[in-house]
Amino acid sequence: MTYTIKDVAQRANVSTATVSRILNDQGGYSEKTKRKVLNVIQELDYYPSGIARGLTNKRTDTIGVLVPNLTSSLITEFLNGIESVAHKIGSSVIVCHTESHGIKTMKYLQLLHEKRIDGLILASTLLKKEYYDYIVKMRVPVVLLSAYSEFPVPYVTANDYEAAYTGTKYLIQKGHKDIGMISGNKEEWIAGNLIPRVEGFKSALSDYNIPFYESYIEYGKFSIDDGVTGLKHLLNRVPDLTAIFAENDEIGMGVLSAAYNLGIKVPEKLSVIGMDDISLCKFMSPPLTSVSLSHNEMAEKAANLMFKMINSATEVSNCILDHQIIERLSVRSQ
Amino acid sequence: MTYTIKDVAQRANVSTATVSRILNDQGGYSEKTKRKVLNVIQELDYYPSGIARGLTNKRTDTIGVLVPNLTSSLITEFLNGIESVAHKIGSSVIVCHTESHGIKTMKYLQLLHEKRIDGLILASTLLKKEYYDYIVKMRVPVVLLSAYSEFPVPYVTANDYEAAYTGTKYLIQKGHKDIGMISGNKEEWIAGNLIPRVEGFKSALSDYNIPFYESYIEYGKFSIDDGVTGLKHLLNRVPDLTAIFAENDEIGMGVLSAAYNLGIKVPEKLSVIGMDDISLCKFMSPPLTSVSLSHNEMAEKAANLMFKMINSATEVSNCILDHQIIERLSVRSQ
Repeated sequence: MTYTIKDVAQRANVSTATVSRILNDQGGYSEKTKRKVLNVIQELDYYPSGIARGLTNKRTDTIGVLVPNLTSSLITEFLNGIESVAHKIGSSVIVCHTESHGIKTMKYLQLLHEKRIDGLILASTLLKKEYYDYIVKMRVPVVLLSAYSEFPVPYVTANDYEAAYTGTKYLIQKGHKDIGMISGNKEEWIAGNLIPRVEGFKSALSDYNIPFYESYIEYGKFSIDDGVTGLKHLLNRVPDLTAIFAENDEIGMGVLSAAYNLGIKVPEKLSVIGMDDISLCKFMSPPLTSVSLSHNEMAEKAANLMFKMINSATEVSNCILDHQIIERLSVRSQ
Repeated sequence: MTYTIKDVAQRANVSTATVSRILNDQGGYSEKTKRKVLNVIQELDYYPSGIARGLTNKRTDTIGVLVPNLTSSLITEFLNGIESVAHKIGSSVIVCHTESHGIKTMKYLQLLHEKRIDGLILASTLLKKEYYDYIVKMRVPVVLLSAYSEFPVPYVTANDYEAAYTGTKYLIQKGHKDIGMISGNKEEWIAGNLIPRVEGFKSALSDYNIPFYESYIEYGKFSIDDGVTGLKHLLNRVPDLTAIFAENDEIGMGVLSAAYNLGIKVPEKLSVIGMDDISLCKFMSPPLTSVSLSHNEMAEKAANLMFKMINSATEVSNCILDHQIIERLSVRSQ
């Protein structure tokens, strides 16, 4: 049975205009009348516009998540982590996909604002000033996941520079000296800043007195395809590479695939290490060694932080998680 | 600048109560007044509760998508297809993840109802009576994607039975007789009904006079892990299998992974075919042959159908898409 505003007014013994005023938060009624009307609204489960419920307890029990990419395995793993926390708490999760696109991102921020979410997580999103200005206006808790910002927005992330340093050092300690890197898109990072994973790679080489040449780095985007073409380009330029440091696991998967099709045995002829440790790594042939950035924990931490802010409006601290090498079968000693 | 209901009333030269009544669709005002107020609301971009905008044109330019699983590659590919259509039209997409869980599904249906979506796509969801009853109440266009229903809800899907028949026939024509199948969860399918992909597999064997034994089928769920354990169980029972028909590509990927770790060469010692033709197939080692069910086209068709219903309120026809074998390197002639 669907109730109308008239049913609410009748049962609360007030005029429909009063119910309207209460729903639109306009004043002109007593607190007692407001409580009475809100009780009836809850009893009847009446909601003219999906808003009454939000007004009755100031919560919608819905959070929003903006993600740049829905087909990235890492992002879907982030979503899994966020949802497991949200569902325990009884909150629904709305996922919107921005493609790292400025206009789309603004549109979805506005949409989520209109839909009156309790809180927002921005996953792997570079926080532009335009977004920051808008989320300030939204007045809901916001947490950055796997991203860092100069703006005062709490974040949960990893130290990309150190993780890349660790991964490269691992290859060096296995005896590799001719190490190529396939990196994601330069422009995805903060304009004018250094790319942390590339810098970590260079620093490790430098600390172990291995010369660095620009030709040892190939820039693509972050997809499997970029690993495929990246390996081909690198080997054309530097046929003697014995190891590849892939900036993420999807690039690493592309390297494994290209190596298979080129008849290059991994790890016998070429060692490959990825980063992120997505769940697909262990199912590759060979299983892909990777630098784990504890992404599952990262996503859960970001969600917990956001709910803490929703529930207590307290300040929270940023969080930078540790990383570790997950050894599988794609790297061998040189 | 944020406007209040008072600004709207003032600029439209009516009382705030009139604006309220218009927003709540209560009547008691002329069409002319309504138009005037709605114009001002649009001018000021005023929305007290995310609803006014919906009322002004009866649209929210937002669609909802319910998916059972966010980490399944197939589902993320569906979402890509839906979003590409929605974004061209200028509609936002809200994605909610039900885990095929009845209570969560109902909760998300209610949520999307409250959020006033223009239309809904249910991807790979078994339409229970409870859901059907609710979506009738929602009074928005609904399309089933990769699912079929007895209820009068339009669907876009493939013929799973015939696709499985074709995949099995392909292995038979390559000379295989000892073919194992790894199937998804029996209970995911309509209770009491036959599992279409299993039935297609059995029919092909029967038509080519190959005896069928229950021990040749392993039931798991639909994940890569199920392919890994499935292959081990099957080979324990039937060591002489020369080919595996995997009910979906993720199971197929698990079979490739288990074979690699067991030292069984694919396709030299074991041929493997998957189904769905997800984009990961071509990156496997070896690249996985699969029965394509045109999922990208399927998702786009479902989205186009839904927008057609939103725009014209016309009846639409169900759509069953063709399938085809995508030959790669994981099957060889026996």
